[in-house]
Amino acid sequence: MTTVSHVPIPTSSPDLPPVERRAALPAGFKAGGLAAGIKASGRPDLAVIVTTDGPAAAAAVFTPNTLAAAPVRLSRSHLAATSGDPRGGFGWAEAIISTSGSANAATGPAGDADQLEIARLLARATGSTVERTLHLSTGIIGTRLPLDRVAAGLDALIPTLGDGDAGLGAVAVALCTTDSVVKTATTAVALTGSDGSAVDATVSGIAKGVGMIHPQMATMLSVILTDAAAAPETLWHLLRPAAARTWNQLSVDGDTSTNDTVFVLASGAAGGPPVEPGTSDAARLGAAIEAVARDLARQQAADGEGASTLITAVVTGARDDAEARAVARAVVSSSLVKAAVHGRDPNWGRIAGAAGNARLATAAVLEAAGIAPDEAATRAGTPAQLDPARLRIRVADHLVFDGSGGGPAAFDRAAARAAMESPEVVFALDLGLGDGRGEAFGCDLTETYVIENSEYTT
Amino acid sequence: MTTVSHVPIPTSSPDLPPVERRAALPAGFKAGGLAAGIKASGRPDLAVIVTTDGPAAAAAVFTPNTLAAAPVRLSRSHLAATSGDPRGGFGWAEAIISTSGSANAATGPAGDADQLEIARLLARATGSTVERTLHLSTGIIGTRLPLDRVAAGLDALIPTLGDGDAGLGAVAVALCTTDSVVKTATTAVALTGSDGSAVDATVSGIAKGVGMIHPQMATMLSVILTDAAAAPETLWHLLRPAAARTWNQLSVDGDTSTNDTVFVLASGAAGGPPVEPGTSDAARLGAAIEAVARDLARQQAADGEGASTLITAVVTGARDDAEARAVARAVVSSSLVKAAVHGRDPNWGRIAGAAGNARLATAAVLEAAGIAPDEAATRAGTPAQLDPARLRIRVADHLVFDGSGGGPAAFDRAAARAAMESPEVVFALDLGLGDGRGEAFGCDLTETYVIENSEYTT
Repeated sequence: MTTVSHVPIPTSSPDLPPVERRAALPAGFKAGGLAAGIKASGRPDLAVIVTTDGPAAAAAVFTPNTLAAAPVRLSRSHLAATSGDPRGGFGWAEAIISTSGSANAATGPAGDADQLEIARLLARATGSTVERTLHLSTGIIGTRLPLDRVAAGLDALIPTLGDGDAGLGAVAVALCTTDSVVKTATTAVALTGSDGSAVDATVSGIAKGVGMIHPQMATMLSVILTDAAAAPETLWHLLRPAAARTWNQLSVDGDTSTNDTVFVLASGAAGGPPVEPGTSDAARLGAAIEAVARDLARQQAADGEGASTLITAVVTGARDDAEARAVARAVVSSSLVKAAVHGRDPNWGRIAGAAGNARLATAAVLEAAGIAPDEAATRAGTPAQLDPARLRIRVADHLVFDGSGGGPAAFDRAAARAAMESPEVVFALDLGLGDGRGEAFGCDLTETYVIENSEYTT
Repeated sequence: MTTVSHVPIPTSSPDLPPVERRAALPAGFKAGGLAAGIKASGRPDLAVIVTTDGPAAAAAVFTPNTLAAAPVRLSRSHLAATSGDPRGGFGWAEAIISTSGSANAATGPAGDADQLEIARLLARATGSTVERTLHLSTGIIGTRLPLDRVAAGLDALIPTLGDGDAGLGAVAVALCTTDSVVKTATTAVALTGSDGSAVDATVSGIAKGVGMIHPQMATMLSVILTDAAAAPETLWHLLRPAAARTWNQLSVDGDTSTNDTVFVLASGAAGGPPVEPGTSDAARLGAAIEAVARDLARQQAADGEGASTLITAVVTGARDDAEARAVARAVVSSSLVKAAVHGRDPNWGRIAGAAGNARLATAAVLEAAGIAPDEAATRAGTPAQLDPARLRIRVADHLVFDGSGGGPAAFDRAAARAAMESPEVVFALDLGLGDGRGEAFGCDLTETYVIENSEYTT
């Protein structure tokens, strides 16, 4: 049996700073959440984040779903209005509102009017303008938001917003729908002050999972806050590749939601000049955003509906990173691979089969990951190159396929099964074709997923 | 509530001839199958079809999986050799061999050598040449075929091949893996003889499902036989659009197999001159092939692993047929829609969400469906156009969403649930944008699917 280089289990990424799973509120923000009665369960369902010193730079990525929800379309138009850039990816914001229990998707013109009315209420309550509000919503598609309850909830909530970590924690709770755990991540980043002195900034993120998750350009809901200073467009250019490497590599069930949204807000309250594109400060801030995004994506995968196991696919040796990511994503998205993990079955044939179906992402995702527009258009959707004679596959650190050794490898099936009895199962694929590297996150497919999703609305 | 035009439940297609679910062996072929001991269960696993009067015209579509199995690659090379056309889509054949229990995929050079040895054995046993053999295989990925058993099985099988329907029925049985029913379809087609007289030809197909089914260019295994006369390339040009409208619209679990293959063989034994492209005979033969393909695809969907319900999505009013098919396919492929059907939940928000994710197929599929190469390249993977203000959705004949009426429609949920208590649930989407029409076939997602696929190899 040929020896292959060991691929470490990527519970952390070597290129990214470490994160803590808590919601530290960066300077320049206040936040809070409560139960406004949108959800029949009576659980928290309304949250607000506001800036304390005028508008923050804001950047966003949204779902590519053609039937994007009212809050997505309104947020995009507000970012376009405050930046003057028609792409709607960045601008300025003073308040974010999140409602859960109803997605306000496929609700027609009435749903758009509801969301605009919420923007008016929020602007009035926070002393902001309608265009400086951003909107998140999640829940059942096709139901209207109860405006009166949102209005009453806002009246109760705004006076209680806090500048401590508890406020952001309350937002994280109120984002949730079928999530079983709250998802938070915080990291620190050292930037450079105007006089060369150190500026310590914080990057904190919260997110919700856990079904209809198969982001193509964004994710389910997430908000990342930082007290670093950066122009909106700079922030956007840091967010997009980070999302391409993290949330776009996450799949729970192959369904891309109508409401996927990630917002990044930078208050600048940490001090120092705005981070300039192309500097080492920008690289560090980008890595901090990506570290938070990656950890949130892993939390979302682990908490996938009905899931008991986090599946991580690590692909090395691809021709480039885009192909590595495509292969990793194909592996974690396969229903058959997901079911095999649930059964602790080292069924590597399904991994190989899924890898062979890997297609590069859409042009928009490839562009976001830094590939030139012309090349992105040409390569979008094309197969990732694989050579079975060079491919190597490890399941939970057991070499199961070694193309250069003739293909299927002799391995201890009982030991491999035992190694899969873990909260995280790692599949490592070395394509043997180049230096491209990528990873993707998913979860096992269980009877519980089927049961939960057979009974969601009724 | 607005009235919408009624979309008939498409248990048959108005443009296609009716089929019977039996395997009538067309003239010019002999066939049979038996248990050769490839499967541990002892069930039939080896089948052969031979021509009785020299080579038949042959056409094929294959999986686009990058790790295509040894039988796929060998068949493609044989078709290229006998036609001189490097695309490997058509040529001449005298024998088809099918093995089940082992897919002979991801088996390395040894697997290729095994398949070539099988070709030699088959050619010798049937008095044919190696290049005139075609190969199908299905089963576990990564295991070698037991050559000695295949050889002994061939020796036993060849003398028993019959020219009656029972022989083709035996092939249909031997194709199966986890299928719960055998899949057959037969139709008749009236062609024109050299002297203008009628030539009655038969088109018969067999197929196997039922997991790893999400064809992108072909399907799982199927063989269609006809005694009509047609040149190989003509046959190929009839097969490709038929496959695009039928098997490429079938999804069981989103996984595209390494072994998907459809062969069509035309013996010419019905008499008459070869069907010429562009004639009414070609249209009739194409419709007969499509009718058989469509019915087999529906049987495969209904017998999807763990499935209890056939899901049919019918899309009308798209800008063109390609967009209609993309939307239909997106709906039947959604895990959340599939789980909702299992729960008899008229959760139309998930249908809308899935429709919003619809992307046109790959360039190869679009070309196969008759779209010009330049346009296919430009449109591949792009979103299908939807306008929520024009969209209408019916679930089991209940209008649940009416965009022009403001969106969500008032409907009797209990009645809709009751209507979903059927072996087939039909979702009808009218996009209100044009004349494009398409359909797709899938099945519900059940706990049984998860259980079966957690325990397949071990």
